[in-house]
Amino acid sequence: MQEVLPLLVFQTDFTYKEGAIASMYGVVRSVSRDVEIITATHDLPQYDIWSASYRLMQYVRFWPKGTVFVSVVDPGVGTSRKACVAKTKDGYYIVTPDNGTLTHVWQQHGIAQVRQIDESVNRLKSTEGTSVFHGRDLFGYCGARLAAGIITYEEVGPVYDPGSIVRLPISAAHVENGKAEGIVEIDDPNFGNAWTNIPVAKMLNNGFAYGDDVQILLKKGDEVLLDRKVRFDRTFGDVAKGDVILYNNELMNVSLAVSQGSFIEQYHCGFGSEYTIVIRKEES
Amino acid sequence: MQEVLPLLVFQTDFTYKEGAIASMYGVVRSVSRDVEIITATHDLPQYDIWSASYRLMQYVRFWPKGTVFVSVVDPGVGTSRKACVAKTKDGYYIVTPDNGTLTHVWQQHGIAQVRQIDESVNRLKSTEGTSVFHGRDLFGYCGARLAAGIITYEEVGPVYDPGSIVRLPISAAHVENGKAEGIVEIDDPNFGNAWTNIPVAKMLNNGFAYGDDVQILLKKGDEVLLDRKVRFDRTFGDVAKGDVILYNNELMNVSLAVSQGSFIEQYHCGFGSEYTIVIRKEES
Amino acid sequence: MQEVLPLLVFQTDFTYKEGAIASMYGVVRSVSRDVEIITATHDLPQYDIWSASYRLMQYVRFWPKGTVFVSVVDPGVGTSRKACVAKTKDGYYIVTPDNGTLTHVWQQHGIAQVRQIDESVNRLKSTEGTSVFHGRDLFGYCGARLAAGIITYEEVGPVYDPGSIVRLPISAAHVENGKAEGIVEIDDPNFGNAWTNIPVAKMLNNGFAYGDDVQILLKKGDEVLLDRKVRFDRTFGDVAKGDVILYNNELMNVSLAVSQGSFIEQYHCGFGSEYTIVIRKEES
Repeated sequence: MQEVLPLLVFQTDFTYKEGAIASMYGVVRSVSRDVEIITATHDLPQYDIWSASYRLMQYVRFWPKGTVFVSVVDPGVGTSRKACVAKTKDGYYIVTPDNGTLTHVWQQHGIAQVRQIDESVNRLKSTEGTSVFHGRDLFGYCGARLAAGIITYEEVGPVYDPGSIVRLPISAAHVENGKAEGIVEIDDPNFGNAWTNIPVAKMLNNGFAYGDDVQILLKKGDEVLLDRKVRFDRTFGDVAKGDVILYNNELMNVSLAVSQGSFIEQYHCGFGSEYTIVIRKEES
Repeated sequence: MQEVLPLLVFQTDFTYKEGAIASMYGVVRSVSRDVEIITATHDLPQYDIWSASYRLMQYVRFWPKGTVFVSVVDPGVGTSRKACVAKTKDGYYIVTPDNGTLTHVWQQHGIAQVRQIDESVNRLKSTEGTSVFHGRDLFGYCGARLAAGIITYEEVGPVYDPGSIVRLPISAAHVENGKAEGIVEIDDPNFGNAWTNIPVAKMLNNGFAYGDDVQILLKKGDEVLLDRKVRFDRTFGDVAKGDVILYNNELMNVSLAVSQGSFIEQYHCGFGSEYTIVIRKEES
Repeated sequence: MQEVLPLLVFQTDFTYKEGAIASMYGVVRSVSRDVEIITATHDLPQYDIWSASYRLMQYVRFWPKGTVFVSVVDPGVGTSRKACVAKTKDGYYIVTPDNGTLTHVWQQHGIAQVRQIDESVNRLKSTEGTSVFHGRDLFGYCGARLAAGIITYEEVGPVYDPGSIVRLPISAAHVENGKAEGIVEIDDPNFGNAWTNIPVAKMLNNGFAYGDDVQILLKKGDEVLLDRKVRFDRTFGDVAKGDVILYNNELMNVSLAVSQGSFIEQYHCGFGSEYTIVIRKEES
């Protein structure tokens, strides 16, 4: 009877417009017929390491322990940035360029150990003359060998100091009685919602309640994008189509939406540390 | 030896722009390593329940009996709309919000029984504080449990009256000798074709024949979009590039195309009951 | 113990906008529960047989021998073009309309034999009244039967002369000491790079070296798109963001890129025989 292998989950910014993914998955299947290949997404915003980092944090927790994730958003491919496999404190593996992609997973799961991929062993031999497609030649190949049990984690390559992992600057929300401050940490580019870094639990513990009207001040730097009273509730369905709502999103952080519309388009809202938000409880 | 489990097929309007699908599939794999996950599509038009309903009708028939389909186009997520699993008369299962998504499957396959998902049992426990992502927390989780055999269909939750299932208004075509009337029921948004609800068999039985020139009157309400003679034939390849043709589509309904062009763009043709079509046989 | 079946890999221009792929994969699963279905891409440029041909050449080599590829870019569906399964000299199978899709695979791998699909046996019976969706009814169905071992390659249908396979006109690069001439053979539409047909090995053997500045003359017909000195190096990361570079791509052909930008947009560069390139070594 065959042992159950870890799953192999991919996220990249490659898109399906050409043959890159087919090449990468072909390499995996040439390494192993038994490893299950899962497509997380190949539509990450191009070169956007921040999104790669956030998305891993968003979904890694829902997978079985031991799952191997391969993330390739890699504007520095072929340069001196390290190629690594990180092991989280709760037992997931992330195969990725060490370019900031581990930021949110480090915050959410903790990194137990990190190893630099030994290219002399864990790189596809036939591709040694080319430097531009490490998704196929290095990350995909090494991830497949790890998930298939052809190499152990120790055989990925030498350990290095997790403290030296490249991390993007992230900030924490601050919530006190009747006031919450944070940033728009990411968007939901499909439904057009703006996700803050403010945990709903902290708001509910500090005087806010579902059904409240709250005062929102959303700024990009000094520019005010939104300054108005908004309903705070569980879901967009709680307000009429077209209304703005502050709701509790799927990661239990409060978020801004226009019901069946796009908040981020309507209010020109991006994400990152310059997009600040202050939420105040209305006097009743 | 392992029993063959039903397949688990997903369609949503989530896109791959962020981590939603990876979260949902992670939940499935945490429920079961053995159920096969199939992506039907995650690119349905946003909030478009009609398309969700039509697409199921389009492809369910081609899958093995017993297949479990999870459909999540759910603008009313977190509100009072029911979450259900319908069993068709020919033995397929559809896991979906009861919001009109079952309309065309009901018409095509018939609904033998419908059960409301019991959230106290068939909802992912760790997500009870959030109301906005039932694809992950309810439909994906419950569908995985059903397909994996962890629960029986009876254990989904209580039955309710199939007659109370939300159904969108649909209309039938009318064909008599030398004249066919119907609507543009859906488009093919990729190739730009307009699919009517008029079965080709009814036309062939009522005086029409492949190779005929036919007179088409296509209207949006009172506005005439097309009023001209068109070739009626088997395939777009039967006319020159750029020509309009009335052809028999893959579901055996007559459809309008521009050969290697986009009929729906060129003639501003949408779909639904206001897009009416009358086809008359030309006098020879 | 179950025998390991060949993989079944799909590429089409169908997109996921509607139910075509779900129908096609449903047919595969109704033929066999055991064949692994792999999505290479469904986002090929519409009706673009050249891209279909190039992409196969790009990735087939990375898959295990014996893999069955189904390629459906088929503007002539339902007309007299042949439906075939080609066997390459190194043991891959390509199921495709014989419309030029085999051009680059023929060049790269060689075609050992080609058979016309016998529709009386290898077409889905229930679909005989429709002529427009051979992805589902013929190529997908026949490919599944072949990969599942239900039919042998010989049972696909009668052989025909490989010399009569439809081939698109392709040209070879010419490299001499300090001068290379070729065409932009394809683009990387995601990252915006222009891939030539000039092998890097030929350049390195004819006086060029990584790190050189080279003079590029890129033309569309008589129109000059680029005429300037450019760095020739291993990867985009070797130059500053926004700089043009001539680099060695993942197929070991030299290519033009703007680091973290889009060369093809910035320089209005398409692909095909009218996009010519001449590279000259700078006098040092």
